[in-house]
Amino acid sequence: MPFRRLGPSGLRVPVFSLGGWLTLGGSVRGDPVREIIKTAFENGINMFDTAEGYAAGRSEEEMGRVIKELGLRRTDLIISTKLFWGPHEPQNGMGLSRKHIIEGTKESLQRLGLDYVDIIFAHRPDNTVPIEETVRAFNFVINQGWTFYWGTSEWSALEIEEAHHVADELGLVGPIAEQCEHHMLHRDRPECEYAPMYSKYGMSTTVFSALAGGLLTGKYNNGIPPDSRLAVQKEQWLQDRAKSLGEPEGQAMLAKIKALADVAESDLGCKVSHLALAWIARNPNTSTVILGASKPEQIVDNLKALEVIPKLTPAIVEKVEGILNNKPAPPSTWGRPPLDPFGRSSL
Amino acid sequence: MPFRRLGPSGLRVPVFSLGGWLTLGGSVRGDPVREIIKTAFENGINMFDTAEGYAAGRSEEEMGRVIKELGLRRTDLIISTKLFWGPHEPQNGMGLSRKHIIEGTKESLQRLGLDYVDIIFAHRPDNTVPIEETVRAFNFVINQGWTFYWGTSEWSALEIEEAHHVADELGLVGPIAEQCEHHMLHRDRPECEYAPMYSKYGMSTTVFSALAGGLLTGKYNNGIPPDSRLAVQKEQWLQDRAKSLGEPEGQAMLAKIKALADVAESDLGCKVSHLALAWIARNPNTSTVILGASKPEQIVDNLKALEVIPKLTPAIVEKVEGILNNKPAPPSTWGRPPLDPFGRSSL
Amino acid sequence: MPFRRLGPSGLRVPVFSLGGWLTLGGSVRGDPVREIIKTAFENGINMFDTAEGYAAGRSEEEMGRVIKELGLRRTDLIISTKLFWGPHEPQNGMGLSRKHIIEGTKESLQRLGLDYVDIIFAHRPDNTVPIEETVRAFNFVINQGWTFYWGTSEWSALEIEEAHHVADELGLVGPIAEQCEHHMLHRDRPECEYAPMYSKYGMSTTVFSALAGGLLTGKYNNGIPPDSRLAVQKEQWLQDRAKSLGEPEGQAMLAKIKALADVAESDLGCKVSHLALAWIARNPNTSTVILGASKPEQIVDNLKALEVIPKLTPAIVEKVEGILNNKPAPPSTWGRPPLDPFGRSSL
Amino acid sequence: MPFRRLGPSGLRVPVFSLGGWLTLGGSVRGDPVREIIKTAFENGINMFDTAEGYAAGRSEEEMGRVIKELGLRRTDLIISTKLFWGPHEPQNGMGLSRKHIIEGTKESLQRLGLDYVDIIFAHRPDNTVPIEETVRAFNFVINQGWTFYWGTSEWSALEIEEAHHVADELGLVGPIAEQCEHHMLHRDRPECEYAPMYSKYGMSTTVFSALAGGLLTGKYNNGIPPDSRLAVQKEQWLQDRAKSLGEPEGQAMLAKIKALADVAESDLGCKVSHLALAWIARNPNTSTVILGASKPEQIVDNLKALEVIPKLTPAIVEKVEGILNNKPAPPSTWGRPPLDPFGRSSL
Repeated sequence: MPFRRLGPSGLRVPVFSLGGWLTLGGSVRGDPVREIIKTAFENGINMFDTAEGYAAGRSEEEMGRVIKELGLRRTDLIISTKLFWGPHEPQNGMGLSRKHIIEGTKESLQRLGLDYVDIIFAHRPDNTVPIEETVRAFNFVINQGWTFYWGTSEWSALEIEEAHHVADELGLVGPIAEQCEHHMLHRDRPECEYAPMYSKYGMSTTVFSALAGGLLTGKYNNGIPPDSRLAVQKEQWLQDRAKSLGEPEGQAMLAKIKALADVAESDLGCKVSHLALAWIARNPNTSTVILGASKPEQIVDNLKALEVIPKLTPAIVEKVEGILNNKPAPPSTWGRPPLDPFGRSSL
Repeated sequence: MPFRRLGPSGLRVPVFSLGGWLTLGGSVRGDPVREIIKTAFENGINMFDTAEGYAAGRSEEEMGRVIKELGLRRTDLIISTKLFWGPHEPQNGMGLSRKHIIEGTKESLQRLGLDYVDIIFAHRPDNTVPIEETVRAFNFVINQGWTFYWGTSEWSALEIEEAHHVADELGLVGPIAEQCEHHMLHRDRPECEYAPMYSKYGMSTTVFSALAGGLLTGKYNNGIPPDSRLAVQKEQWLQDRAKSLGEPEGQAMLAKIKALADVAESDLGCKVSHLALAWIARNPNTSTVILGASKPEQIVDNLKALEVIPKLTPAIVEKVEGILNNKPAPPSTWGRPPLDPFGRSSL
Repeated sequence: MPFRRLGPSGLRVPVFSLGGWLTLGGSVRGDPVREIIKTAFENGINMFDTAEGYAAGRSEEEMGRVIKELGLRRTDLIISTKLFWGPHEPQNGMGLSRKHIIEGTKESLQRLGLDYVDIIFAHRPDNTVPIEETVRAFNFVINQGWTFYWGTSEWSALEIEEAHHVADELGLVGPIAEQCEHHMLHRDRPECEYAPMYSKYGMSTTVFSALAGGLLTGKYNNGIPPDSRLAVQKEQWLQDRAKSLGEPEGQAMLAKIKALADVAESDLGCKVSHLALAWIARNPNTSTVILGASKPEQIVDNLKALEVIPKLTPAIVEKVEGILNNKPAPPSTWGRPPLDPFGRSSL
Repeated sequence: MPFRRLGPSGLRVPVFSLGGWLTLGGSVRGDPVREIIKTAFENGINMFDTAEGYAAGRSEEEMGRVIKELGLRRTDLIISTKLFWGPHEPQNGMGLSRKHIIEGTKESLQRLGLDYVDIIFAHRPDNTVPIEETVRAFNFVINQGWTFYWGTSEWSALEIEEAHHVADELGLVGPIAEQCEHHMLHRDRPECEYAPMYSKYGMSTTVFSALAGGLLTGKYNNGIPPDSRLAVQKEQWLQDRAKSLGEPEGQAMLAKIKALADVAESDLGCKVSHLALAWIARNPNTSTVILGASKPEQIVDNLKALEVIPKLTPAIVEKVEGILNNKPAPPSTWGRPPLDPFGRSSL
């Protein structure tokens, strides 16, 4: 398993990690959770991502229990959790106030059965709390030894910039990574909006939904299978997504995915899911791609993407870009002539 | 119960909260304290205010005992206490020195039986201690995790500004709220003197004596009832207040209160106490109005003020201002022309 | 003429000002320029906006000449200019490098025949220059006494935040105002994206195109008149705009404008242009609405909007919003409950 | 003539200086101005105080003209002026914005015919301008070499503290002196409110109205003489003052002045005016007492107060305090025991 630095930090994370969203503690409980985590660990995945809001805390509980049962050494693991959607009363029991960040961290650690995690992400921005309070609170948590780093999740570039502004002024630690949605069909934010965050602060991403919620496995190419998540689960956003597949935009998207599948098979000898995972993993700003799994086999299969990464030559990349046709445009220079691309053109 | 931010912080406090001054641990002890706090909590009041100096520490003890007995979850509560009048020797056992702030906080937490409170107020300014020492000491207490925030109580705007001056220079946290007397008959300091603190630092107030020690309930309109606090309690300041009611100024005050009672009944269909509470609660710089209660029924009655707040239309406000005739004048512009009121003219 | 503070500064600007874009020095030259500026000044407009890029410098030249001819006292005037599109070679003769900001300021002052202006705007962001260099250069220009303040024009909120980040860290002065397009048909950026800039930094706007390039005068309601700008001028963006009016979106826009004209006439007894100008002027974050004029009469007519501002009652505002149907949504709180609207809920 | 440091600065000012308020350029013009200034200088007074607002600029013009006519060496002089009430349009032509401070300084220097003054006072606070802008603007003026220092005049202690807050944070120079009204009948602000400004920032005062507008000369003791200022001048505040002398408070004040006159004559062998001037001059926080004069003889007479200063023994001071009965009370310690007065009790 290759390792990469997480943002500007010295922490090394595996290119593929395992996340608990929707599955661990949610649709998967008990022994199967242990089998999934065990398989991941044996295949080189030593980073596990969860959140206080996943399955109302049960994701953290299951993960913590399994880590203990498997007897994994704490120093061999990288554990990330996320704070925002707390399980208690809604006025002060959620969000990014000092009160919830501190109280929420204590409760997360208790559920995980750990003294500390490696990184805590702010699961969403909270525009009802001054950013200074949030930055100070995460630094308090770091200074207590309850986490080593903190990051953001689905914040805008402006919100991240505001956090670094405050952190710089107060001599505090800013966010080192963004946990964001990034896949072949969702590129503007991670590839364009965040560009200054990568170059100015050395931040990187921990990516979720690299397979676009399963779309990029190709399993919806011929309709929604009756046992798939889109057929089974009832959340509104899943229902909406299912419906959208029947509409013209959804159909165009499925056509792209079929074309990608052809490239994967003919040019790379792999599944479209491997191409999709490798595509995100090869992005220099990706530190880790968080895999979701409801069965151990999925992990083993997904990791085949590791072999695809070096096969993504300029020619293949151009072919894929031609199919996707969604490469974010560079920002306008308002008429200033472009800089010589062979020189130090970038800021 | 509506919630508001406390000063520039992300902490949300209920518009009405419960305070222990004079009653809890003082004139009310034991089971009745539990009934009062229980009633408050069941009616949406989850913020409780006390002080090391209330009933020589018994207020904190009673409040802590009751929270435990009722089995209230800590994260669901907002607890504020105040330091200045400590219960021990007078040279170093009170005031705002580093020694007393740290020792006093520890003893308050012990009496409350809590690991931390949400905010500690400096119960008065202490001009015998350099402000830098006080600001540093409160930040120490925050960094220990013993409180999330600190505030001031009955400080002058100058003293508050001095605290922020030091805090800004040292990268420390300044006071976020002022616990002050504010009622229809006492407006200059909260409405005028503190104005720059609201606009520059986003501070807000936690108000005590919104009913002017009972005057604004109208109960003294026809003389001092024999069972009222002014008749029963012997403190000098209460005696002074009782005496002043018989003098011309006191009589003029009672006349105003009677006129307000007419407005309350005829225009709003409520008691003058509801009008008085709503009047303070509608002030945009008020975060919470601290209610005092010696019986549970008083809380339920006082909360009827919530329904009066939206009824305070510009016409009613003008009528009330006409009766009060004590609206603080805006600061002089020394002859500079006024700014366009449709723009953002204020600092 | 009412005056408002410009951003967080103490400079007071008239609610309506006069701009040179497209007209002064461009389509209007010589004596007519004097008549326009004279009429403006006599009607209370003492702020004049220009740019190095307007008519390749001739706008500044004409404005400077007329100020001298009219014998206007410098202290009675507010002069703003903008830097980005310099008239010389394109590699270093434009943009926001230290070289161009300093050289460009000198040349602007020379064309204007002035020792200093009141504010210089960065006419566009320049992502090929580090923001630190730009902030330092504007502070150099301020410290030379060549301008009192600096601002931005059509920067993103992120770019403005980056400028304040640098300014705060270095103890320098950040931008105080944004010169932006703002009209009834273009609201997202000025009303939503910039919201944190207003609240955090006290910035305000100097608005251009408040009449949407003439659309909101209603003159295109029944086709493009042969003597109008859209018919006469050949710039690509004007041609594009003309073409778009014939398409479904353009037609829907014209329908809205007709409905607004009805409100203006029936409810306010004014033209739709007066309603449109008053609408922007009533926005608390607008400091000044920059009027364009090719004839003196247009200024006198436009200023009738001053009488319309106080007529924009909540009922009228609601009616207009119903027609426009483009009010920007507030940012998501991601499930946190709303704060009490009677308190100071906003950051 | 004894000299004292002006505030925390190294500038030495004479204990008595000459001011232009109401007289020079106002009620006194032309040659008599020269005679007054000449007499002052020959008697050791080398500090001259004026303001842009005195006689609409004519005070500065007369003073500048006379300095030139007398051939006084610039380095031998200390010139102070004050900015706030500028002579031009009222929106940006007055107050403490960057625009007016810079433009106003330039115009003051032009009227004075000087390259620089020694100190510029902000003649009043301006709460319509952010304090940061004012502090930055005065520092700009200092950095241009147009003045050596800046001060405040009739600001509240809070406003002065705000100025130092900003100055400290930005590494700029704060105000070094307060030009304030201070006399035996007006003591609270200069002796009590400003106390922290003296101890924290080493500020001192340049005092005006030390004779209470003539009251403390005793000339109104037996009615308003027909040729006195209160009889002759028509300004409202002078009229109000004249009227107040007939009322009970005014009568009590005159009785005090008569008693002081007795002390002056019997105990000190001087006039009450000498006692009054010496009383202010002996205050350790007074740097200079600004004398007003409409005739040269007044200066010579006033300077006799210099001999009275050392005669103000503890016994005399106690006697005077007994008559005045207006000594400001020290601030409350809220019940903390007083500190040992022989130790380092003060902050």
